[in-house]
Amino acid sequence: MGVSSVELEGKTVGFAITGSHCTYDAVFLELVHFVEKGCRVVPIVSGTVSSTDTRFWEASSWLAKIEETTGTKVIDRIVDAEPLGPSTALDVLVIAPCTGNTLSRLANAITDSPVLMAAKATLRNDRPVVVAISTNDGLGLNMVNLARLMTTKNIFFVPFGQDDPDRKINSLVARMDLLVPTVEAALEKRQLQPVLIERFRYH
Amino acid sequence: MGVSSVELEGKTVGFAITGSHCTYDAVFLELVHFVEKGCRVVPIVSGTVSSTDTRFWEASSWLAKIEETTGTKVIDRIVDAEPLGPSTALDVLVIAPCTGNTLSRLANAITDSPVLMAAKATLRNDRPVVVAISTNDGLGLNMVNLARLMTTKNIFFVPFGQDDPDRKINSLVARMDLLVPTVEAALEKRQLQPVLIERFRYH
Amino acid sequence: MGVSSVELEGKTVGFAITGSHCTYDAVFLELVHFVEKGCRVVPIVSGTVSSTDTRFWEASSWLAKIEETTGTKVIDRIVDAEPLGPSTALDVLVIAPCTGNTLSRLANAITDSPVLMAAKATLRNDRPVVVAISTNDGLGLNMVNLARLMTTKNIFFVPFGQDDPDRKINSLVARMDLLVPTVEAALEKRQLQPVLIERFRYH
Amino acid sequence: MGVSSVELEGKTVGFAITGSHCTYDAVFLELVHFVEKGCRVVPIVSGTVSSTDTRFWEASSWLAKIEETTGTKVIDRIVDAEPLGPSTALDVLVIAPCTGNTLSRLANAITDSPVLMAAKATLRNDRPVVVAISTNDGLGLNMVNLARLMTTKNIFFVPFGQDDPDRKINSLVARMDLLVPTVEAALEKRQLQPVLIERFRYH
Amino acid sequence: MGVSSVELEGKTVGFAITGSHCTYDAVFLELVHFVEKGCRVVPIVSGTVSSTDTRFWEASSWLAKIEETTGTKVIDRIVDAEPLGPSTALDVLVIAPCTGNTLSRLANAITDSPVLMAAKATLRNDRPVVVAISTNDGLGLNMVNLARLMTTKNIFFVPFGQDDPDRKINSLVARMDLLVPTVEAALEKRQLQPVLIERFRYH
Amino acid sequence: MGVSSVELEGKTVGFAITGSHCTYDAVFLELVHFVEKGCRVVPIVSGTVSSTDTRFWEASSWLAKIEETTGTKVIDRIVDAEPLGPSTALDVLVIAPCTGNTLSRLANAITDSPVLMAAKATLRNDRPVVVAISTNDGLGLNMVNLARLMTTKNIFFVPFGQDDPDRKINSLVARMDLLVPTVEAALEKRQLQPVLIERFRYH
Repeated sequence: MGVSSVELEGKTVGFAITGSHCTYDAVFLELVHFVEKGCRVVPIVSGTVSSTDTRFWEASSWLAKIEETTGTKVIDRIVDAEPLGPSTALDVLVIAPCTGNTLSRLANAITDSPVLMAAKATLRNDRPVVVAISTNDGLGLNMVNLARLMTTKNIFFVPFGQDDPDRKINSLVARMDLLVPTVEAALEKRQLQPVLIERFRYH
Repeated sequence: MGVSSVELEGKTVGFAITGSHCTYDAVFLELVHFVEKGCRVVPIVSGTVSSTDTRFWEASSWLAKIEETTGTKVIDRIVDAEPLGPSTALDVLVIAPCTGNTLSRLANAITDSPVLMAAKATLRNDRPVVVAISTNDGLGLNMVNLARLMTTKNIFFVPFGQDDPDRKINSLVARMDLLVPTVEAALEKRQLQPVLIERFRYH
Repeated sequence: MGVSSVELEGKTVGFAITGSHCTYDAVFLELVHFVEKGCRVVPIVSGTVSSTDTRFWEASSWLAKIEETTGTKVIDRIVDAEPLGPSTALDVLVIAPCTGNTLSRLANAITDSPVLMAAKATLRNDRPVVVAISTNDGLGLNMVNLARLMTTKNIFFVPFGQDDPDRKINSLVARMDLLVPTVEAALEKRQLQPVLIERFRYH
Repeated sequence: MGVSSVELEGKTVGFAITGSHCTYDAVFLELVHFVEKGCRVVPIVSGTVSSTDTRFWEASSWLAKIEETTGTKVIDRIVDAEPLGPSTALDVLVIAPCTGNTLSRLANAITDSPVLMAAKATLRNDRPVVVAISTNDGLGLNMVNLARLMTTKNIFFVPFGQDDPDRKINSLVARMDLLVPTVEAALEKRQLQPVLIERFRYH
Repeated sequence: MGVSSVELEGKTVGFAITGSHCTYDAVFLELVHFVEKGCRVVPIVSGTVSSTDTRFWEASSWLAKIEETTGTKVIDRIVDAEPLGPSTALDVLVIAPCTGNTLSRLANAITDSPVLMAAKATLRNDRPVVVAISTNDGLGLNMVNLARLMTTKNIFFVPFGQDDPDRKINSLVARMDLLVPTVEAALEKRQLQPVLIERFRYH
Repeated sequence: MGVSSVELEGKTVGFAITGSHCTYDAVFLELVHFVEKGCRVVPIVSGTVSSTDTRFWEASSWLAKIEETTGTKVIDRIVDAEPLGPSTALDVLVIAPCTGNTLSRLANAITDSPVLMAAKATLRNDRPVVVAISTNDGLGLNMVNLARLMTTKNIFFVPFGQDDPDRKINSLVARMDLLVPTVEAALEKRQLQPVLIERFRYH
């Protein structure tokens, strides 16, 4: 992890958020870190994020907070994510949290959300995509997708592990607080190690 | 098939229905069987079921009939299927009929419907999912998905076979009337045998 | 390529279009060729095509032009594509352009658009499906899907290759002007050769 | 099955045998049928066949019988199977019985036996390969391989099913007596139907 | 891990060893544990184990030690492993260590060693196979195979993780000392948890 | 291709050869180029290369010529390839020609030859493997393996294409004369472009 954070300054970081509400506080903190380190942060959200309100959480006010922090309009339509390929090149794309539903479609090359379009555009440009998973089927049917992406060029993972091995036998969650060093390594085309952790130790 | 039906009494059975209208009569009969055997039945439908009306069939009145029979509100939104994991645990989830479109997304860990969310929640809890397929591409491009699920922990199949081998060369359909014994075996983590049948013999 | 075009006369050709706007001019030209050769052409579009307007392009007027040329109403709903299996059998289905998003769902047997339903119905009838790809991830995560389809019964490809190997390292595009001879070969269950081309040579 | 056997006369049939001794009597009968119908039969065996003797069965005398019946030397080395591609083209290759070990390597493009080299050479020439499986893991881990091959161009299956569903839950065996009509259909690039049978009914 | 060891007494345990010499001391200790707990232990070795001598290690004397400890002749030929299906049924098969080369062939249904034949025979009988991996490519190209097996019926894993994440970025090794409790859980068709560990913590 | 060859000087290049005799002249020329550029070249051969003699070609004298040219003993046993991981690290491994049989086993993580062991050891060390394919099933059943490897970290391909699209419809061959620039790009973790070529143009 000895990579200096200097390298992040001036970088354009796509920050894509998919729908796993329970991790949003931790994720927002990390988004702030990238802004503080001098990155230009481009926020991108999937349809579920922009359209779901719950009793405890309101989509529109949360998105407004993100736009204020980054000074950039949130991309929430596929058609607005397409220019990320040819014109507004990102130096790196972060997907945090990455739900199981996004993980599986990324691995199978299904591109039906702004987040997935941003990933395709970034890979087309030979730039890294950093994935922070949070999913109940990570050791279940989704593990094949995870396995494929682990060996795929330009895809890197925030260290992850089982968060509750006895009650959620297939669940895997990343350590969101390792997002910055994972991105720093990914910019050098290296995977931060160890990538498999005993996630239930960290709270 | 010598398993006593006593075991079904008191069980909570998720009953998920995806969009293959021609099998709905047979499926409704089976749903009634589970109610008669003393199960609590939780109905779940995919978006196509709740939003499609045809000349011969009207979604809303059919769903009303199901709610009346089961005494339970139909789950038709992803957000309402999520609690099936942590709180309202099902003893078993039935998907009948399971279209090709749901089969393929289940096998690839794509979770974009209430039915698929219910399946993910059930597998997370180490409980069985019983699948009664009805699809035109079962021996075509969908057979790889079928093959993966056939060996997957906690997934069991209602015996199925070709219903019209000469005119629909890739079509596979389950025998809906074997749903109850398949569920009984699945609750003991056994697959009802034979699972491959000459479906065109049974009408 | 010595196949006589006579064979096309009187054939029913499904012509499916998915959303890659930049190729629509070339594609429309080919659609006209099939009409001129005496085919009955049935146009089918995915949801993105019928609902997306851009500054330079308007969906409704383009679809009107297609309906006028073919004399047939455009199919743009899944429920209207289903009869292509049992009753209105197509002799061949063309998908041009075929985006990466449609390619991946076809390969994985996901059937959630009118175009994919038409493909499933055609394969069920043991008839050819001809695919003209245009996608940024053809040599990336989508290549596995491409590889599966290349060996699949009844699926044939319009010759394709890299259109811009230095700046879009994973991009593959078909030569739309080879659509007619590819279909002629496919009707004889042959793949037009060579199928891998240096696409950047042809403009 | 109304295809006249006339078409077989004069055809060159590769007849490949892999190591499942219990089916050899049935297989030899079929080999004789092809000879009687006027085919030139080229026998090919895998290493396990030519090197395994058991208490009840002796490899060398069995191979001698095959050579006498066909009038052709048995191919039992990879290097001798290679010319089947460029020079001694087969009209069709039969693999009967096809063990699970050969099925999986065929599906994954592993070519480390004379039988697999013959298959590769035949597919290269756009000619059919007819597979008669006999394996204990056909509904287990090998089912994915079976599924891939079922949709692969030029590969056809002798109708198969479960032979003993209660005691060998994953076992699948073909009906060897349908080898001739399956080959006749395959020469027209058609799959004999029904392909999924209740194998335990036929003894 | 609260499963009483009483259940092991009287069980027939297949103990398969594949070629990763550095773990043999740890593995032998575990084999002794099964003997001490009153199991009948049937040793099985792959060809590499029985034919490789090194400067520090001699195959024949090691195998002699195993035969003496278990009182059973080592199975080292495929033909001798076949009866494990129909007649000498194992209650459970252990593969420890399981090399990457055996892991990949198991996942792909390639059966070309006595160990793989024993696994196929055990799965055919609906009995558990317990795998203790030790391989340099566990997070590399072999991870897809690992992922497939993690969700496969009757296959269970001894908890594993990265042993040296900085210098061997893809290496995964199981904790051999958890073999007994993993087998106890597997006999109840449960996976011992947590299955993903920080292996580098345990020496 | 503007990469200066200076970078090759002093590098340790593993040069692995698998069994496709017709390309050996072209391959030997390339091996000489690496020696001339000041590389230390470590030759590695698969079993088929070291054991096959033909009428026109004798294994032992060819291997002697390679040892003389490189000044290094040929590695032809798995056990001798293992140290390439921990101790004798290669800067890059070349596999030329890479047969279909080696390609498929590499993609599926089967490690049963010295060449495959060298590849596994190199990937473990996060170093590039450069593959120059020559196989009759490259567009057939092997294309899925090719597709997987095309997106795999640290694996790069010498530009390849169809050599005889009309008579060998699935055959793919690399341009051996591009081996040096492909290796130069791979050492910078870049793929030489264009990677898909009309191979039949180059003789």
